Amino acid sequence: MRTVLVILFDEVQSLDVTGPVEVFNGAELYRPGTYRIRTASLDGGPVRTSSGLTLVPDHSLADAPAPHTLLVPGGTGTRHPDPRLAAWLREHGPRAERLVSVCTGALLLAEAGLLDGRRATSHWSVCEKLARDYPAVEVDPDPIYIRDGRLATTAGVTSGIDLALALVEEDVGRETALSIARHLVVFLRRPGNQAQFSAQLVAQTAQREPLREVQQWISEHPGEDLSV
Amino acid sequence: MRTVLVILFDEVQSLDVTGPVEVFNGAELYRPGTYRIRTASLDGGPVRTSSGLTLVPDHSLADAPAPHTLLVPGGTGTRHPDPRLAAWLREHGPRAERLVSVCTGALLLAEAGLLDGRRATSHWSVCEKLARDYPAVEVDPDPIYIRDGRLATTAGVTSGIDLALALVEEDVGRETALSIARHLVVFLRRPGNQAQFSAQLVAQTAQREPLREVQQWISEHPGEDLSV
Repeated sequence: MRTVLVILFDEVQSLDVTGPVEVFNGAELYRPGTYRIRTASLDGGPVRTSSGLTLVPDHSLADAPAPHTLLVPGGTGTRHPDPRLAAWLREHGPRAERLVSVCTGALLLAEAGLLDGRRATSHWSVCEKLARDYPAVEVDPDPIYIRDGRLATTAGVTSGIDLALALVEEDVGRETALSIARHLVVFLRRPGNQAQFSAQLVAQTAQREPLREVQQWISEHPGEDLSV
Repeated sequence: MRTVLVILFDEVQSLDVTGPVEVFNGAELYRPGTYRIRTASLDGGPVRTSSGLTLVPDHSLADAPAPHTLLVPGGTGTRHPDPRLAAWLREHGPRAERLVSVCTGALLLAEAGLLDGRRATSHWSVCEKLARDYPAVEVDPDPIYIRDGRLATTAGVTSGIDLALALVEEDVGRETALSIARHLVVFLRRPGNQAQFSAQLVAQTAQREPLREVQQWISEHPGEDLSV
């Protein structure tokens, strides 16, 4: 049983939390007893997400269980982190068997010195800031996630789902990861080196309806012979 | 300013809530004043999601603001709904300008009689139950979402993000919807008639790494000439 501890703070991005949580929780549907998911905020009090939802954590950081996987989500709250949170991460981050940031959560790991000398990514909108403010971090703004030993950092928001599926595949197996992806009606399990700026999304800027229909057909028939 | 009211209940699926909420909230980044997002539970008390997160609603149903868009998420809690929730939906559903269910939230709308004589979809795992228990509903288990007048129903979980992006495109415009998709690092904006069982995902069952790499390359280069 692996304990996944998710850190909550004011102005957290709610999808950065629920995406990975639902993937790990999904593993419980197919392989019960795999993960124990817990949340914690600095003082154990409720936090307000950047979209206005209020989340109540299970623990304060002081009484949180020792995590196998320590997961730090992003959100505008990462811009001006509480120094006590950075201090807690500096102390407890190195002890976790796996250290994960989703989206701009990388700023918190960097502030705690946990990305020094490591390859890391973050949401495309903050990668420049991450590289500038923390020059010891080797920032790569392109991939949707990067694994560097026990460290995993992801691009923005929904890429937390992709990384979590990859971790479940590693921990439990490919079939379980695929079952979860189907359960969540995920379109595609993106590999880590997939570009943050999706070519599919760019192609969808096409204004003309017939062209969009062809693009959709292609995306639905990946194995088709498209020779003309 | 459109009020989006999201109904919360115990055993709600947290991604069904946060996916659409973050899309509507994302519109605030690019076009402030577009949406006002509120949450409500039956008695205004906290709810526990199926993955164990605790959410605190803004309102009880009795004091919730009249919604432009009434959004009912899914989750295992839809299997045995509180009769008072169904009664509230029966009374207030017809008044909303737009009625949306995400995932198995369709079961709640059906229980309230709001899907009678309408085309609707839901998570693939409950479409059979939906058709059997509510024969007046015209269930289509294939598409990831269905629009039928002021009613919109979606397939499972992440398809709530796709529908919300489509609604934002309608309300605010294509550029804003695309900006939000980029901000959330969504791979692809799926149109409603995209199949729930993603061909891309099925293709990813390929065990051999080289084949997966080719599939990835194809998905990243949708405009490429693939003739041999």
